[in-house]
Amino acid sequence: MPENTQEEQTLTRLQQFSKVLQSGTLQQLQLMLNGLFAAEIAHLLESLPREKREFVWELVEPELQGDVLLDVNDDIREHLIRQMETSELVAASESLEVDDLADFIQDLPDTVMQLVLQSMDSQDRHRLERVLSYEEDTAGGLMNTDTITVRPNNTIDVVLRYLRRSRGKIPAMTDHLYVVDRNNKYLGQVPLTDLLTREPSLRVGDLMNTEQEGIPADMSDKDVATLFEHRELVSAPVVDEDNVLLGRITIDDVIDVIREDAEHSLMSMAGLSEEEDMFAPVVASTRRRALWLGANLITALLASWVIGLFGATIEKLVALAILMPVVASMGGIAGSQTLTIVIRAMALGQIGVGNAGRLIVKELSVGMLNGVLWAVIIAIITVLWFDNVQLGVIIGAAIIVNLITGALAGATIPLLLKRLGADPALGGGVVLTTITDVVGFLAFLGLAALFLV
Amino acid sequence: MPENTQEEQTLTRLQQFSKVLQSGTLQQLQLMLNGLFAAEIAHLLESLPREKREFVWELVEPELQGDVLLDVNDDIREHLIRQMETSELVAASESLEVDDLADFIQDLPDTVMQLVLQSMDSQDRHRLERVLSYEEDTAGGLMNTDTITVRPNNTIDVVLRYLRRSRGKIPAMTDHLYVVDRNNKYLGQVPLTDLLTREPSLRVGDLMNTEQEGIPADMSDKDVATLFEHRELVSAPVVDEDNVLLGRITIDDVIDVIREDAEHSLMSMAGLSEEEDMFAPVVASTRRRALWLGANLITALLASWVIGLFGATIEKLVALAILMPVVASMGGIAGSQTLTIVIRAMALGQIGVGNAGRLIVKELSVGMLNGVLWAVIIAIITVLWFDNVQLGVIIGAAIIVNLITGALAGATIPLLLKRLGADPALGGGVVLTTITDVVGFLAFLGLAALFLV
Repeated sequence: MPENTQEEQTLTRLQQFSKVLQSGTLQQLQLMLNGLFAAEIAHLLESLPREKREFVWELVEPELQGDVLLDVNDDIREHLIRQMETSELVAASESLEVDDLADFIQDLPDTVMQLVLQSMDSQDRHRLERVLSYEEDTAGGLMNTDTITVRPNNTIDVVLRYLRRSRGKIPAMTDHLYVVDRNNKYLGQVPLTDLLTREPSLRVGDLMNTEQEGIPADMSDKDVATLFEHRELVSAPVVDEDNVLLGRITIDDVIDVIREDAEHSLMSMAGLSEEEDMFAPVVASTRRRALWLGANLITALLASWVIGLFGATIEKLVALAILMPVVASMGGIAGSQTLTIVIRAMALGQIGVGNAGRLIVKELSVGMLNGVLWAVIIAIITVLWFDNVQLGVIIGAAIIVNLITGALAGATIPLLLKRLGADPALGGGVVLTTITDVVGFLAFLGLAALFLV
Repeated sequence: MPENTQEEQTLTRLQQFSKVLQSGTLQQLQLMLNGLFAAEIAHLLESLPREKREFVWELVEPELQGDVLLDVNDDIREHLIRQMETSELVAASESLEVDDLADFIQDLPDTVMQLVLQSMDSQDRHRLERVLSYEEDTAGGLMNTDTITVRPNNTIDVVLRYLRRSRGKIPAMTDHLYVVDRNNKYLGQVPLTDLLTREPSLRVGDLMNTEQEGIPADMSDKDVATLFEHRELVSAPVVDEDNVLLGRITIDDVIDVIREDAEHSLMSMAGLSEEEDMFAPVVASTRRRALWLGANLITALLASWVIGLFGATIEKLVALAILMPVVASMGGIAGSQTLTIVIRAMALGQIGVGNAGRLIVKELSVGMLNGVLWAVIIAIITVLWFDNVQLGVIIGAAIIVNLITGALAGATIPLLLKRLGADPALGGGVVLTTITDVVGFLAFLGLAALFLV
């Protein structure tokens, strides 16, 4: 199977590394580690159980430690930072770019943060403060300050001479130079490829591209990611409310946003955080997950209370107890499909006032059709199993009610959560199954109490 | 709330568009559409109900239609292609790059495919055939053939003169030129920034970067994405088994892979496809989802059968029927948390022979601790509710058994599915809840039958 061989390839490095970790020498291990990129080391650290992780961490070169710390998840970063000496933390922070340093410094203990700030020159400190003044999840928090700017009346020739003097100091992922006026207001951008292919006597102002406007510093990182994805950008300028150029965002940071955003939906639906460490200590994991189980217990007890209302009915006809989980689970499954579709569409920004109503109608229709289909099948099974036609009719009716309820709940819960200012993905599943359990038991046992027993 | 305002921003364009669609003139609509990028139009089309979608599609300029078709999901692409004339399809395919054309052409009816192939010149047809000879989900299927190559003995000066003659025809996302020998074997790459900053008299062979090896054409797209992410690449060369340069992969195509991969886990867990159209026709949606509901019904009936084994016990003590969903649901929730963590880690390639055992042990420990914690709480609630100490002890024991079962099932099901060559995310949830339902009912009702009734 293709899926299988793909995985195998991905795992090769991890497996090789595990082997060296178990039986190789320290030199072999260090040689292997030093050949990796920071993000690759971070990926390995995330895959390792705690004690091996600490051992490997000691072997990572100090200049790489800062970048690796930024690439591991929050859980592991906190853990490693707690174990590092102050001097090691200061050294790690010195190798970082300003946007990364801005993320990193907020995780440091206060005393270390002061030391890092003191070790910086005033220009760098000023840049750092500029990035820190924006929220982490905005364009301003995502940007770096390493822009190369030119003036509109510069000729290509002048720009080329300027670049040649800089001797390879062009920052990574630079595909455009930004054109600014004397007040540093953003005017447009010039692709590097234009510098290579156009007449050297041309002025920057005549060939600059003004189509790509500056990204406002307060734009959400999610919107920045959408912009990069839709317009196939490698980098883009960030400006303040007066259109003054503040910095630039590069695609590597945007990919992290896309990855985290997508994982957020998956993990939130199970009440987990995307920053969770797979090998977090047992007690810490237990505590976090206990909260989610507690929330579920309350909803499960609510369902039990509903069943309890019909205790006498069940005593008379035990088939009700046998069949009631079927009604609840079919509603839950149908509802969770609708819920997943709506949560994904919301994460992609594809649901608004204009189409939410249409989507609800469509999902209700699907719920109704599948309700009728499965009601017939389950009714037939019930009649054959318990030799009771009335019971078959009642479970069929309950199935239809519950599948429609599931569709309605699945489509509206995330929209309501968002309107309340909550995360649409978080808790949606627990609320949904509460509703389908309660309605399922109520419909099935209620109808039975009325017409059957 | 920040989440809220972010969404609002994302939606603005969609809402503006909806407004124009409802009340604006055709000219306004066309003006608005023509100002958008292909991916933005695709995003809008995905957000629109079917009949509005068809109406808007008619307004998209023919030169853009090819790119838009590539960006919408499979469902919508098929639907739109079915509605297009042969001549429109040929026109749409003419505006595409080779890698995109290779994806597109496979969705076309045979007759149209022949027409498209006939309309190409032999060089382009040869390039297309090269891309088509690799699976869609490999580096070869992802690559484009628009590389710029230079020879090691060229000086920078010669390269610059060559580029200047090409007059802006450097393909988008070109950040490196590739160095090849006379047999087109890949030797290394030269960053564009080096051309701008280094001495014009230097030879390409002396300054080329040989660290980035060529990506083998049969590498899986998932591994390509990991490589781009970890090494912060904008583009990378693709080679065959003899190291002959075949083409290059660019970050925009890699982002699509990352996005689809992440959505795949989310959608698969609910038995959905990431290519599903939110506004698919009701009957088509109903049919697809019916399969998943059918699978769930079989598992639900299995659980019912288990309950049926204890019908006599329930008749004697109806509290068992009232409480049994609590046991099943706590196990299901605990298990689905473990399942989600394992599926994410597997999608990231972070689970292998070296750490799977450790992860199972950790999850079992968390399941055991939470089992004991919630067993005590649920036992106390049961004793207070039903005034029956034995029942409290029995439900506590069943909770512990079922939370451990949930952890074990959640950790091992995706690993087993993968070993069987199946998608680890698909169906994991249904199998898991079957196990936690069956074990939960069996433990609770079985213990009650043995010790209580």
